[in-house]
Formats: sequence, C-alpha cells, structure tokens
Amino acid sequence: MCTWDLLLTDVNVATMCSDSEPYGVIENAALAIKDSRIAWIGPKSELPEGNASNTKRLEGRWLTPALIDCHTHLVFGGDRAAEFEQRLNGVSYEEIARAGGGIRTTVHATRSATKESLTETARLRADSLLFEGVATIEVKSGYGLDFDTELTMLAAARALHNDHVASITTTFLGAHAIPAEYQGQTDEYIDFVSSDVLPVVHERNLADAVDAYCESIAFSADQVGRLFEEATKLGLPVKLHADQLSDGGGAELAASFNALSADHLEYSSSQGVRALGDSGTVAVLLPGAFLTLGETQHPPVDLLRECEVPIAIATDCNPGTSPLCSLRLAMNLGTNLFHLTPEECLAGVTCNAAKALGLSSDRGTLELGKRADVAVWDIGHPRELTYWAGLNQLNRLYIEGTPVVQND
Amino acid sequence: MCTWDLLLTDVNVATMCSDSEPYGVIENAALAIKDSRIAWIGPKSELPEGNASNTKRLEGRWLTPALIDCHTHLVFGGDRAAEFEQRLNGVSYEEIARAGGGIRTTVHATRSATKESLTETARLRADSLLFEGVATIEVKSGYGLDFDTELTMLAAARALHNDHVASITTTFLGAHAIPAEYQGQTDEYIDFVSSDVLPVVHERNLADAVDAYCESIAFSADQVGRLFEEATKLGLPVKLHADQLSDGGGAELAASFNALSADHLEYSSSQGVRALGDSGTVAVLLPGAFLTLGETQHPPVDLLRECEVPIAIATDCNPGTSPLCSLRLAMNLGTNLFHLTPEECLAGVTCNAAKALGLSSDRGTLELGKRADVAVWDIGHPRELTYWAGLNQLNRLYIEGTPVVQND
Repeated sequence: MCTWDLLLTDVNVATMCSDSEPYGVIENAALAIKDSRIAWIGPKSELPEGNASNTKRLEGRWLTPALIDCHTHLVFGGDRAAEFEQRLNGVSYEEIARAGGGIRTTVHATRSATKESLTETARLRADSLLFEGVATIEVKSGYGLDFDTELTMLAAARALHNDHVASITTTFLGAHAIPAEYQGQTDEYIDFVSSDVLPVVHERNLADAVDAYCESIAFSADQVGRLFEEATKLGLPVKLHADQLSDGGGAELAASFNALSADHLEYSSSQGVRALGDSGTVAVLLPGAFLTLGETQHPPVDLLRECEVPIAIATDCNPGTSPLCSLRLAMNLGTNLFHLTPEECLAGVTCNAAKALGLSSDRGTLELGKRADVAVWDIGHPRELTYWAGLNQLNRLYIEGTPVVQND
Repeated sequence: MCTWDLLLTDVNVATMCSDSEPYGVIENAALAIKDSRIAWIGPKSELPEGNASNTKRLEGRWLTPALIDCHTHLVFGGDRAAEFEQRLNGVSYEEIARAGGGIRTTVHATRSATKESLTETARLRADSLLFEGVATIEVKSGYGLDFDTELTMLAAARALHNDHVASITTTFLGAHAIPAEYQGQTDEYIDFVSSDVLPVVHERNLADAVDAYCESIAFSADQVGRLFEEATKLGLPVKLHADQLSDGGGAELAASFNALSADHLEYSSSQGVRALGDSGTVAVLLPGAFLTLGETQHPPVDLLRECEVPIAIATDCNPGTSPLCSLRLAMNLGTNLFHLTPEECLAGVTCNAAKALGLSSDRGTLELGKRADVAVWDIGHPRELTYWAGLNQLNRLYIEGTPVVQND
C-alpha cells in the first residue's frame, strides 16, 4: 500500500503534458505527493490504495503546474515612474536620455543600493508574483554594468532564493547595455564582461545562465558570440534578448549556440525562426514590453507554430520598458496583443517556461516524479486563467508540496 | 479643541482637488475623520489642537481618494471564456453569433440565474476591485432584456450594496441590446423598456441612472432619445454608451440630455466632443474593451482636453468585451493605449469618476466634509499607481472612516 504526505482529491487537472487532450486535462482526478514530489496522478477512479498523512478535498477546483516567470529583471534600484510621466507629458526619449535618464537612471540607482535593499525591493515584486501562483522566477543582472554591482545583483537574487518560498534562478546579463564609462568602446566592454566578470560569476556559482542584449543600440551578434563562447566553455547555458527592435540576426545566433531561449523576437527573420525550430530553443514572448513601448511589429507567431518552436510568455518585469508584475496579465496580453490561444498562454508559463530555464525535467508539468509545485484555482476551466485580466483566482499554491499561499 | 474619531498622520496626500499643484499634493500632511467624513486636511504643521480617539502614523505613505469604478457590468450569469477561446482558435464572431453565442450566451445564463447567485458571483469581482482600493462601483443591468431579469439584476446589485463594504450604484441598461424575441422590432423593444420596465425600476428605486447602447448594431440616437425623455421625466440622470464602433451621434445625444457621462467615444465627431464640453458631461474611456476588441481607432483625447471635458477611466468589467477586474490595470492601459498622463488616469478614477456618477459633492477628492473614503499606498509618488501594472501597492483602505482592507 502506498504512503503519501498529501493527497489532493476532488479536482480536475490540467497536467500540461503534451498528449491528445488539450491542456492535458484529467477530470475527476487525484494527485498524491511524497517527499516534495508528485508520487501519483491520474483519474480518481484509478487511485491505488494508500495512506495519506493529509488529504485535501478541493471541491471540483482545478490544478495546474505552479506558474513560472522565465524572464524578469526583478532586482533593480529606484524606479522610472518619473520618466514614464515625463514621456506621457510629451518629453521625448532623446531628451530624457540626454538628461542622463533611461537605463542610466536605473544603473545609477542600482550601483548606489546595497545588496540587502536590492533583495528587499525585489521581494515585494516576488511576493506579487507568488500570490497569483508563480513558484519559479528567473532574475537577471544587467543594471550594474560594473564588476561589483553585477555580482551584487546576482548575490541579491541568490539571497532572495534562499529566504523566499519561490524558487529564484539567476541569469548573468552583464552585456545588457554599454555603461557610460565604456561609451564608444563596446568591444572593450564585451571583453571586460567575458574575461573579467563572467569567470568570477561562474566561480562563485552566482548564475544559472548567461544572457545578452543583441540589438543595434547594444551589442552586435559578433560581440555577443564572443561572450557566448566563453560561457559555453564554462558550461553555462545561454539565453538572448533577440531582434526586439530590429533584425540583428539574434534568433540565428541563439540557435547556433543552442540557447535555452531567444526572447522578444518581434523582428526575427523566417530563417531565424527556422533555426530556432532546429535547435529546440524556446521563444520567450514579452507582451509587457510590446505594450509599454507601443510597438506595432508583432512576433512571428504563425511561423513559430509552423516550426514547432516552443513558445513561453514572461513578464519581463523591469523599471523601464515593462513595469509589469503579473504573469497572469502577461498571459492575457499574450492573447489580446499576440493572438496566442489560452492553451498556448498557459503552456507559455508552465511547461515551455520550464524549458526556457532548462528545468523541464524537474517542473512545468504535473507528472510523476516532478516537483510538487501545484496551483489550485477557483475556475471552471483553465482557459479562464487567460480570459480574465486582474482577477486573482488562486485558491492555494503548493511549492514542493507545502502550502505557501492559502486564500480560503 | 477639535475631537476626531481618527487621525491619519505622517502622510503625503494627493487630494485630487483642482488647484495649482499637480495631483493636489500636500506633503507632510494630516487628515482627520469624524462621523465618517473628512473633518480636517492640510499640512501637519497647521493641524489644530485636537483629540483623536485613534491616531494612525503612516510612515510617509501616500493617501489618495479611494478609487471609483464608474462603468461596470459586474452582475452577470456564466462567462464567455469558451467563446474567447474559440475566437483565438480562429472561429469568427459571425460563426459564434450564428450559433447563438455572443451577448445571447450571457443573456441566457443571466435569465437562468437566481438573484442570490448573481449577487454572489458579482461579490467576487467586487472583492477584487476592493482589494486594490476601489470603494465605489457602478453596476449596470442589461443582460436580462426582459422585465423580470432586468429587475432581478438591479435587485442583485442593490443586495450587493447592502452587504458589501464597497458602495454600489446601479444603472438601468435595459436598452443594451435587442433580445431575440424582439428581433426586427427595435422600436417596440424601446417602447417596452421605456413604458413597461423603466417606470417600475423607478418606482422600486432600483436604479440611480439610466443608460443605453447607441450604436448601429443596437439603438439609434432617436430611439435612445425617446427612452431618455422618459428617464428625464422621472428625474433619473442618464449616461450613454456612445460612438464605440462608429459615429452614431452619441456624444451629441448625451450632451443634449446633459448626461452624467458619455462612455467609449472612440468614433465621436469633433462637434460631439465640443457638445460634451458645453454640457459638462464626463467622457468615460474604457481601455479594456479597446484592448479586448483589438480596436485601432483611439478616443479623441486631445480634443477632449482642448474642450475641457472631464475624463474618467473605468474597467467596463463584462464577460464579452472586457473581462477586466482591475481598475489599476485600466489606469495603466489608459497611459499605454490612450496616452493619458498618470495624473489624468488618477483623476479618471477619483474626482472625474465621481462626477460621472453624480457623486462629486460627496466623494472623489480628499477635502473637508467629503466621505472619508481614503486609500493608503506604499508608493513614493502617486504617478506610480499608473506606472505599475499588476502590482498591488495598497496598504489600507478606509471607507467612511472604517478600515476595510489592511495589508500590514
């Protein structure tokens, strides 16, 4: 006879495993947890005999994998609300940049902050995500752009992981922008990031992946390629901000390094998308930045589907181009702005988001042996999670089998 | 010496009173409450001597008027998530309508529901608004489209008012759509609404205002005019869904009846907007519907400003075209989609939203004698309320001086 720590019963389940059923639905299901892992899942009628230390009857509610936000800049100093207001009052980006604004504002505020204050302000944003069902959050560096602050940002994210119930993964994004002190010396800055910062990041185990911003206003594909070669030598997987504002060959570059993900992709070429399909790289779409920047060029969703590129969705939570702290809202925008289906949106924040972090063997679907990261929803069907904007239907959230949010 | 029930101190205040300071800001302020009303407000240095039964030090947090959602369809049966999903999977509006879908789905579900179940499902949505600082919510009928169900919807909203801490105002929207049983008999339906339903609605005191949908697919300006004449005879103020999908002369019609508000307005003519300016009618902009319908025609914001038409913003929460249950998100969309400033967005959910409900003598600003409906925010400046999407910065909410939400 089986023994379980917790049995969730009287539920419907969207496993998000790819099989013939949309959403991987199992109605009238049960899910058993032992040692923080899923020990049994299936139709309740097939549940084997067992003893559970604790049984929770969920009255017909729905279970999904806990949500995963696979692209955020959650750690930063200050905010950019004042510039946001200036722009809406008619001040141009150029004027703001000339006055030392834009990303430089955030770099300045982040360099001035302590590790502790960076962790604390990020905690509020992590809490906001958690309370709507997010159990795993990727956090990037990239507002330090100097040795000390890049390391401090990553250390702040690691500290958040250690004392927050959500699981935080970290990405080194030293090649996010060119800092003022390297203006006109982009190659030198890439060398500095690759040779001086990256090895220490790796040695101190501060990052789970390496990312860069490949764009005409940032780094060329060649420059990013040099950084990615160093990352690859160190065994670190790579991700890429690719083709957001123009086609810089980012998708092809990401594919050539078997990147975990290529993110944004509004301007990717068809060759680029096909290359992503071949390399198995996840396309991470970021509707919050699209909305905030008032973009009109849509990511090539139809071609991504045709090439079977897994599509993820993330908040891109950041102070400049996506002050968005709701993954549920990113899902809704995924339908309204990018015409993704509700099922694609839910896959985008579960199974495909896990893939984008290299964690799909561990989480992102509800199946035997995976982490018991389970969201319980007050809904009649999983499509409602994308349909509603601004309505938090989370009933409870389990992380590794422990209830961390309880709304009843 | 003054005596107060509650003194809020160590705060900054955005009164939203129109004076020389943006947002009506008073820094280092205090606000005193007696008998559910604001009994004193001003710089703390000028606070008169007084005794407060209770003093709350708010550590530099910001106060604003509690928010007001002045256009919702919060009471309805069922949902339209299945149709939402069908559309994203490529099924056209026409096919859905031909299969009996669209608003008919909601009319059918609402007619089948009990008053109690309508109140209970609306309560979840009212709670969602309340938890982000909304103290006053307008709710429309319009999914019954028959005598009994229109009255039941309004009674459900009145019941919600009576046992919810938020204040619910009701609007009779019998002229929302043409029910199947009146197809091809629009004039007859308007007669029925005007002569058979409206007088009973009025007699039973079920509605605070009367609204109609003036649009080529619904009712003409002439037809709405007949209804509004009856409403005016009964002393009921009017509001109008105007010029959402085409210019039907809605703005002019609303102005000619001195309507409290004209709502949507994407296609209003410049004459229409000038008429609104002359009549003092509030323009209620609804970015949730604009987003959900994928509209590209923007409301005439510049002309509204030029004609000094007060601009409000609302969720339009409804199951078909705006499944949006966050007024904070509507504010954010007001900037990102309609290019309103953060100050306009905050005015749009406070002072101007109160005007749109005919309640501006009672609420919508923080000033002497008004209801002590006060939101306390964990922010550094009121523009952050529009800048962030999906981050609930509410620290606490007082309604008539009583704390109804406390997040610390």
